[in-house]
Amino acid sequence: MRRLAVLTSGGDAPGMNAAIRAVVEEGLHHNIEVIGVQQGYKGLVEGNFRPLGINSVSQAIRRGGTILYSARFPEFSQLSVQEKAVQVMEENGIEGLIAIGGDGTFRGALALTKLGFPAVGIPATIDNDIPGTEYTIGFDSAFSAATTAIDMISDTAASHNRTFVVEVMGHNAGDIAIWAGVAVGADAIIIPEEEYFMGDIARRVRTSRKHGKDHGLIILAEGVMGVEDFVAAYSEEAPEQDVRGVNLSHIQRGGSPTGRDRVFATLMGAKSVDLILHGQSGIYVGIIGEELAVFDMIDTLASSKHKVRDDLFELNQALTDRY
Amino acid sequence: MRRLAVLTSGGDAPGMNAAIRAVVEEGLHHNIEVIGVQQGYKGLVEGNFRPLGINSVSQAIRRGGTILYSARFPEFSQLSVQEKAVQVMEENGIEGLIAIGGDGTFRGALALTKLGFPAVGIPATIDNDIPGTEYTIGFDSAFSAATTAIDMISDTAASHNRTFVVEVMGHNAGDIAIWAGVAVGADAIIIPEEEYFMGDIARRVRTSRKHGKDHGLIILAEGVMGVEDFVAAYSEEAPEQDVRGVNLSHIQRGGSPTGRDRVFATLMGAKSVDLILHGQSGIYVGIIGEELAVFDMIDTLASSKHKVRDDLFELNQALTDRY
Amino acid sequence: MRRLAVLTSGGDAPGMNAAIRAVVEEGLHHNIEVIGVQQGYKGLVEGNFRPLGINSVSQAIRRGGTILYSARFPEFSQLSVQEKAVQVMEENGIEGLIAIGGDGTFRGALALTKLGFPAVGIPATIDNDIPGTEYTIGFDSAFSAATTAIDMISDTAASHNRTFVVEVMGHNAGDIAIWAGVAVGADAIIIPEEEYFMGDIARRVRTSRKHGKDHGLIILAEGVMGVEDFVAAYSEEAPEQDVRGVNLSHIQRGGSPTGRDRVFATLMGAKSVDLILHGQSGIYVGIIGEELAVFDMIDTLASSKHKVRDDLFELNQALTDRY
Amino acid sequence: MRRLAVLTSGGDAPGMNAAIRAVVEEGLHHNIEVIGVQQGYKGLVEGNFRPLGINSVSQAIRRGGTILYSARFPEFSQLSVQEKAVQVMEENGIEGLIAIGGDGTFRGALALTKLGFPAVGIPATIDNDIPGTEYTIGFDSAFSAATTAIDMISDTAASHNRTFVVEVMGHNAGDIAIWAGVAVGADAIIIPEEEYFMGDIARRVRTSRKHGKDHGLIILAEGVMGVEDFVAAYSEEAPEQDVRGVNLSHIQRGGSPTGRDRVFATLMGAKSVDLILHGQSGIYVGIIGEELAVFDMIDTLASSKHKVRDDLFELNQALTDRY
Repeated sequence: MRRLAVLTSGGDAPGMNAAIRAVVEEGLHHNIEVIGVQQGYKGLVEGNFRPLGINSVSQAIRRGGTILYSARFPEFSQLSVQEKAVQVMEENGIEGLIAIGGDGTFRGALALTKLGFPAVGIPATIDNDIPGTEYTIGFDSAFSAATTAIDMISDTAASHNRTFVVEVMGHNAGDIAIWAGVAVGADAIIIPEEEYFMGDIARRVRTSRKHGKDHGLIILAEGVMGVEDFVAAYSEEAPEQDVRGVNLSHIQRGGSPTGRDRVFATLMGAKSVDLILHGQSGIYVGIIGEELAVFDMIDTLASSKHKVRDDLFELNQALTDRY
Repeated sequence: MRRLAVLTSGGDAPGMNAAIRAVVEEGLHHNIEVIGVQQGYKGLVEGNFRPLGINSVSQAIRRGGTILYSARFPEFSQLSVQEKAVQVMEENGIEGLIAIGGDGTFRGALALTKLGFPAVGIPATIDNDIPGTEYTIGFDSAFSAATTAIDMISDTAASHNRTFVVEVMGHNAGDIAIWAGVAVGADAIIIPEEEYFMGDIARRVRTSRKHGKDHGLIILAEGVMGVEDFVAAYSEEAPEQDVRGVNLSHIQRGGSPTGRDRVFATLMGAKSVDLILHGQSGIYVGIIGEELAVFDMIDTLASSKHKVRDDLFELNQALTDRY
Repeated sequence: MRRLAVLTSGGDAPGMNAAIRAVVEEGLHHNIEVIGVQQGYKGLVEGNFRPLGINSVSQAIRRGGTILYSARFPEFSQLSVQEKAVQVMEENGIEGLIAIGGDGTFRGALALTKLGFPAVGIPATIDNDIPGTEYTIGFDSAFSAATTAIDMISDTAASHNRTFVVEVMGHNAGDIAIWAGVAVGADAIIIPEEEYFMGDIARRVRTSRKHGKDHGLIILAEGVMGVEDFVAAYSEEAPEQDVRGVNLSHIQRGGSPTGRDRVFATLMGAKSVDLILHGQSGIYVGIIGEELAVFDMIDTLASSKHKVRDDLFELNQALTDRY
Repeated sequence: MRRLAVLTSGGDAPGMNAAIRAVVEEGLHHNIEVIGVQQGYKGLVEGNFRPLGINSVSQAIRRGGTILYSARFPEFSQLSVQEKAVQVMEENGIEGLIAIGGDGTFRGALALTKLGFPAVGIPATIDNDIPGTEYTIGFDSAFSAATTAIDMISDTAASHNRTFVVEVMGHNAGDIAIWAGVAVGADAIIIPEEEYFMGDIARRVRTSRKHGKDHGLIILAEGVMGVEDFVAAYSEEAPEQDVRGVNLSHIQRGGSPTGRDRVFATLMGAKSVDLILHGQSGIYVGIIGEELAVFDMIDTLASSKHKVRDDLFELNQALTDRY
């Protein structure tokens, strides 16, 4: 193999650039040229390529987002478009593809492998909701950014003895809410995976306050209900509390990736190159128990479901259950 | 004078604790005991006091919010309530009050001085909108936090080639929007003090994009219209752009104060003690041209209006006006 | 059991306060009072205790260092001093001890268990060098702080096209160096566990520069040699490079703990209370594969040795091995 | 005028890139092409130029260091080398130069103006020690980075009840030490501009501790003596204290510029273009009282000396002078 392509697709996630850099460096180590595809599968079809030099990727390792850009491209579900992509790559001497992104990204890569073109995936999404792997690039940064932002809000909550409800991202997964909720010592964590009762939440905040805590803090995952609706409903249950809502929104998404996100992105980026060089395809790399793991795209995406850390959720439930 | 009180009132602002610490330390330097009043004027009337030790204020210098808490207390506009406050202070041997906060806080302090009780103000609000002084405690931290948050959003905006509209705080003043807007190189800044035209904003973003910039960035000050309404109106004007809105909300408010906020809070905190010891009252300290200044509460609040930095606004207008 | 004590000992590590908070909250959940021992084993013998309220520990969750203080106390290796500690605890109605710290801390706890007093350990050290557990409180924060600091230095290194050698902490373990080194894309990582050759390091930096990277970056772990000596020796090998050295020193140690450090500290803190309530003693909690684990103090400390992540070290070696 | 050049020289300072971006944008506004000179005056003589696109400078606004690189080049003091620079610029159609840096940078620019080539300076150095202007690009970021780093060290200092001596940068100016020292509530600040007495410093730390502060903090400016020597001398004076030293070194220098540094860099960058377009030369822009100001290079550099903020130094002396 002489030339590989790499692309990012789907929502941007901090650490994507560290994966790109690792792909380029590992390629160079094996004397293979790595071509960057801009704007995901759209750029693949349009031949929107650029060479990736060691200096540009070296600087990018500490930058958020993706230097290769991402774009929506629903047309890629069509066979003719997929065939066009293979043709464009072959015309450019590209013999394999590393696709960095989430479920949708992997489905695109899988389609290419069905046409006989080698492709390997790297899981990247701040939501951490990809089956098989316990870890996806961007989650640690998003969880970390959410924690820092909630810390800031806690200052204001305490200063005014208020209860703040903070909505965090996660698509339909409660991971960011659970991890950030435990990290900030939230009185309650609301996630799509678990039932909740407004009365129970109000009780937890009240016992905290009774024991002397100077504010209340409720973490609400995306996918349950909007924070404004939640604040309205909660305020009826807890009329004695001064309640405010904040949606952390996109600030969880960007920013310099954490060291951890960069390390695992680097580990997976290098591994993906090794795998494709050894003739592997239709697979994606991942992390289990902080160690590298490899998953079959068809099997895993079809059968596995992502699971949140129940033990952390239960931990928070226990810690805030008092009398 | 043997004993002073200090309180914080109104919205919390990073750096308030640095001012409290300076009041305590300068008091100690003059062998005066400083009593902390909890929950602003409400606590003053209720006698909600606590002694302020050097260790607790020393640690607080780097913490956001206010360790003395703040609270709404509209009842303080009543004469009888003000007289009660004076009585409570006299019963506790308190001979003067340092009041840290915004316009409303100063009006409360002024009421006390009319009853013959010495009071001096320290301006603190993230909005920077207090007449007379060019600087208020918390503005540098809020502007800095907004800048950092917008930097994060820029990563996502660039990754997807989107236009982001970011709403920042400011009450009815455009200061945070202007300073943060220049700091992030915004394509347009919308503030309550200046007219704007959707078509002109769209043009600025378009010429940026035409010259190669990979995203658009519009900073919207509080007090113009909500970010969701703005995005809806702007999208009609610029249908070719993928537009998203974010409200930075309370994350601008908290967090560790910047060094600059702490330095000026310390300067003003110490000065306020010196002034009250020298028999001054009905005044507040402030900063003009980075130097200490003193303002008369009645005169300044009645006649002056806060002005934003027109030169910075014009600067951004010029820099984003291209062909 | 009615009353537990908790102490921190050894070097401070970000996240210790989150563990203290979890011990207090889990105690409260089980209706047990938790007493804070100040200044580690020294305070235990001197009866330097303070009650730990929910508000103070709630705020402390996001603060670095330890609110219970730490202190050196070599006298605790004497049996009579250990007996005194047991006596002081018994006089105060304390029926069990949670000891947060490193190897030395655990040895102290083990001594108490030999006298029949229940004690459970929680591993906390930025160096990550405790046998058995893969994770110690503070490592993620230290690694993260080191990464951020090296990012800053990279800006200067690139601006002047220099090679920087950055010394990081780790006692005799290369963990911080390896993780931070991979995170920043270092040209070389020097750790006590592996041989190194100056000529090989110079070659790696040179090939990076030849391929266009605008600076060089070498991460040097504590325990190899001082950074000044290294710079002197390296400069002889690479006279064409403008080489500078920086020792990150104590800035790696402090600062707000990362979310991850707080989550695992909380998990371990709660578990330690559960274990001691169930009659366990002479053990410490830990993390294997991101899951809770429990270790026997005698067995583990006697037989196990901490191992660094060889795969990450090899990863960096491969990525920087080019032609 | 059709084409301008911009260069950075001397030590890198956060915010240099914001100034470069403003020069490019203001040039574009006036329909003038801006050429980036790489590696300062060295690159000027060698014709090491690159075009500066709006996207690259737009992203650079939030990056530390200088994207144009800096380099030592003592040869530029020779007339023949200066003449060569003018020749190279003229051959490339360059009609004016914006030089960003410190005293040495301005001397280079001045030499060019003496040969009839238009040049305007922008002050940039973290040390804040350029005559005339009260503000130099990079100072706010360096002071801010130092403050954050000392905050981290304070956690460790408090945890072990130690006294830390922290050496900060400043060349021969005490500005960073004074501002950061006040911001962190230091017990003592040592600067080259003021005498100090070890006994007096020890007394200040002791009275702090006596009043309950749990640690000691001494800020030492560069240019007094090395931190290791200071710790040795201080320890003799204060043998009862556990004293440690840290040199913050290069971590003060890099990192993303603060919003404030970017705002003033933008203001000065745009102004410098306007001035050179209006035929001005041999001058540099600056800030007095937070407003733009312009200085004559010959006059100011010859007669003025930089002054530190005595009032802030005295403030800290007063606050830490207790009984």
